[in-house]
Amino acid sequence: MANYNIVPLNELIAQFERLPGIGKKTASRLAYNILEQPKEIAEQFAEALVNARRKIHFCKECQAFTDSEKCGICLDEKRDRSVICVVAEPKDVMAFERTREFSGLYHVLHGVISPMDGIGPNNLRIKELMARLSSNEVKEIIMATNPTVEGEATASYISRLVKPMGIKVTRLAYGIPVGGDLEYADEFTLARALEGRNEI
Amino acid sequence: MANYNIVPLNELIAQFERLPGIGKKTASRLAYNILEQPKEIAEQFAEALVNARRKIHFCKECQAFTDSEKCGICLDEKRDRSVICVVAEPKDVMAFERTREFSGLYHVLHGVISPMDGIGPNNLRIKELMARLSSNEVKEIIMATNPTVEGEATASYISRLVKPMGIKVTRLAYGIPVGGDLEYADEFTLARALEGRNEI
Repeated sequence: MANYNIVPLNELIAQFERLPGIGKKTASRLAYNILEQPKEIAEQFAEALVNARRKIHFCKECQAFTDSEKCGICLDEKRDRSVICVVAEPKDVMAFERTREFSGLYHVLHGVISPMDGIGPNNLRIKELMARLSSNEVKEIIMATNPTVEGEATASYISRLVKPMGIKVTRLAYGIPVGGDLEYADEFTLARALEGRNEI
Repeated sequence: MANYNIVPLNELIAQFERLPGIGKKTASRLAYNILEQPKEIAEQFAEALVNARRKIHFCKECQAFTDSEKCGICLDEKRDRSVICVVAEPKDVMAFERTREFSGLYHVLHGVISPMDGIGPNNLRIKELMARLSSNEVKEIIMATNPTVEGEATASYISRLVKPMGIKVTRLAYGIPVGGDLEYADEFTLARALEGRNEI
């Protein structure tokens, strides 16, 4: 069978396989699907990939994804500027927005403290968070990192930095399943977790 | 939330969602993954998509995918030219190759007869199959379409065309899947398995 390998097909399968949660069989199924469709489909997909990656960068303020200088949430004057919800990844912002229960701002750390992976506080966007807190507008920080060891460590690290500034620091309630991932939580669970947040 | 939509991100999510078996949530997860990786990853992926679609076309002989004029299987002189396994889709060729049990050639129909979808015999690569049979080399045709109403109809349609040429036409055996559980087999499968029982 190795004799009949079609190089461009194998390359496409390998690219799909690189994506999280996509195994060899699924990757192969997706690649065949691309080949079975009109070539415009592949071209549009390719363009969307390059476009998204080129045009989208981090919001100057909250470090979430945006295609402008500041993201739509930071620019929205109706959002409550006294509360910042601190999350690990840009996708977590979308998870909270889906609950429609939070009207404050966000801050994306781009990771969590994880000595095992060599990620310390300096590798995260903590400096940018501290700069935002100096304006006196912020009254509360909601630590919304994942309920894992690293997420907890990051929450308490930031809590120790922020509390002395007289800002209230809260943590999501354990309505979220311990050891789970924010991305997979449904909006009701996330909404309850927001509602039951406690001061730390 | 609609106010904060990032157009290039939504376009990328939409492209992933177009793929078979990828829902909104998975599409979104994959798109965020692309944004979180170095931009080279997105560029390589885009290139693989365009490359595969441009370089791969149908084998002149068997209509399977290839990046040459004829595919590796048709060019392989060690393959048995007296048997042709007729399949509906290019991916079915790979499924048979994985068994390592078949040393003949293939023919890809690119679909099955399906009046409901407006697909008749003329929309399939049946003419190309008939042209291959005129050489007198072929002794047997294995009809390996799916065990569905359309697959059966296609198999019997081709069988009626080919039999008068004095070529043997066979059909894949029906039965219980290897490693399966009788409890979960439907009554039609079990009835066919009984019918096709072999002496041991």
